[in-house]
Amino acid sequence: MQQVSAGIDIGGTNTAIGIVDDNANILAEISFPTSGYPVFEEYVSNISNTIKDLLSKAGSGLELRGIGVGAPNGNYYEGTIEKAPNLPWKDTVYLAREIQKYFSCKVVVTNDAKAATIGEMVYGGAKGMKNFVMITLGTGLGSGIVANGQLIYGADGFAGEYGHSIAIENGRQCGCGRRGCLETYCSASGIKRTVYELLASERDESKMRSIPFETLTSKDIYDFAKQGDKIALKAFDFTAEILGKKLADLATILSPEAVFLFGGLALAKDLIVEPTQKYMEQNLLPVYRGKIKVLPSALLGTNIAVLGAAALVH
Amino acid sequence: MQQVSAGIDIGGTNTAIGIVDDNANILAEISFPTSGYPVFEEYVSNISNTIKDLLSKAGSGLELRGIGVGAPNGNYYEGTIEKAPNLPWKDTVYLAREIQKYFSCKVVVTNDAKAATIGEMVYGGAKGMKNFVMITLGTGLGSGIVANGQLIYGADGFAGEYGHSIAIENGRQCGCGRRGCLETYCSASGIKRTVYELLASERDESKMRSIPFETLTSKDIYDFAKQGDKIALKAFDFTAEILGKKLADLATILSPEAVFLFGGLALAKDLIVEPTQKYMEQNLLPVYRGKIKVLPSALLGTNIAVLGAAALVH
Repeated sequence: MQQVSAGIDIGGTNTAIGIVDDNANILAEISFPTSGYPVFEEYVSNISNTIKDLLSKAGSGLELRGIGVGAPNGNYYEGTIEKAPNLPWKDTVYLAREIQKYFSCKVVVTNDAKAATIGEMVYGGAKGMKNFVMITLGTGLGSGIVANGQLIYGADGFAGEYGHSIAIENGRQCGCGRRGCLETYCSASGIKRTVYELLASERDESKMRSIPFETLTSKDIYDFAKQGDKIALKAFDFTAEILGKKLADLATILSPEAVFLFGGLALAKDLIVEPTQKYMEQNLLPVYRGKIKVLPSALLGTNIAVLGAAALVH
Repeated sequence: MQQVSAGIDIGGTNTAIGIVDDNANILAEISFPTSGYPVFEEYVSNISNTIKDLLSKAGSGLELRGIGVGAPNGNYYEGTIEKAPNLPWKDTVYLAREIQKYFSCKVVVTNDAKAATIGEMVYGGAKGMKNFVMITLGTGLGSGIVANGQLIYGADGFAGEYGHSIAIENGRQCGCGRRGCLETYCSASGIKRTVYELLASERDESKMRSIPFETLTSKDIYDFAKQGDKIALKAFDFTAEILGKKLADLATILSPEAVFLFGGLALAKDLIVEPTQKYMEQNLLPVYRGKIKVLPSALLGTNIAVLGAAALVH
């Protein structure tokens, strides 16, 4: 009997569920709007029915080994989602416990960036690595840290929030209530803020001078950079410089073998991945120089969070 | 037969060796000048004879379980000391391998701050903790990081150099060749540099205005602070502020249960430990607030490096 896992990626917009075999093949998958289920029990009931449907579609003779979930504010120790601002259920919800009313297998919950980290470790470029860092560049900046071959959860399950380390003291206002957090610079929203700062400080011509803040996307900035727009190119360079410096700082704690970048921005290999490596290298303590690779995730373009969530049960 | 361990703390000035039982009692110990042995093989020969002497002095019927060594630039993976600037042997020396020519038991090498971290975990205030940070405030700032119950060595054995994370961009010149490293602010030498910066920037009267830079010690600064010297008090406050902010940053990676401070400066509980806790708290990401304790090492005043080195063999 072939063993498979279910991976669930809970996002503010959509919930994606996949049935995954041991070779990282998604045998069946589906996605539905998270916001359609304001009552948590109904959401869990729908998840459970969906998994059963997907299992029968995925093939015959499959045995469900376990269910892994990546969710914003997911707590590995408690199996809960705690006060996630972008999800319909505002209080702490007992996700693992509720799902286990429908299934007898193991249910594991963690946050979305940690699920992606597990995905990279089990199926991606970090196979066999014992010490590495995963950085997900989305709307914000998520991170997962692996040391001695284990994901670091910390005392309370909330370790690995490097997006909220301070990049520039008294810098940009962050959603967390503080100022200068790394994710206010290095993320899809961060690079947009950099563009508007540069439009103000520099005199370069740019087509972005005619686009309102609300409308511009990081994909637009990428396209303008590829066309040679100087503001867009400077914005990428500044983003890579801040990220490179903060990765050099992170190295003093972890001395990782590699740092993987995931997310839309990481697709810009020559504009983000390579300059981040360059700036990190320039700022490293001498003992670490030439040892740490900055790499695009090997799972770019896949649903790494579904894969990683599924791998959680291993 | 009672099992004991030998702990060796190799410093630029002195080498301390102790025979330690499982209850952290040092049964016999001795210290000799490191610089007296420019030929490495003679140094190892002396260490080995000293351990044998100490064993016979410590009691009868003792069995040596293993030998642990804490040394600057000690590499856990290789059992080597690599290019330590303050030791007589400038190249890489194969310490574990050389000692094993004299003993059949296990020999483990690590750096001095990591040995102290193991000491705190096995014998001190971190007993039973799975996630904590050790900060040693000496001439420089050493650190050891424990996550998931394990000391983090990183890919190359050199993880845990938080003294060389950047506290202030383009700040004070550091011995590592870069600028702004945490240890240029938070250490015995760092607080002295702060005093002279304050003597320049502030107009407060201070007895330290008559003391040359070369002469002043961190102990003097402590004594002046206790007498109410405003410059000395401001220097301690600034030191705690920088350290507190950097510990808040560290929390985003590790979410530790506690941070232990060791070293001469950490004896100044009300001047360093408590204000560091305050400044850390003010700068923490909300999810970590009220969860992380800043504590003086429970082994202040002991030779924690000898104890920790001995505990390495467990």
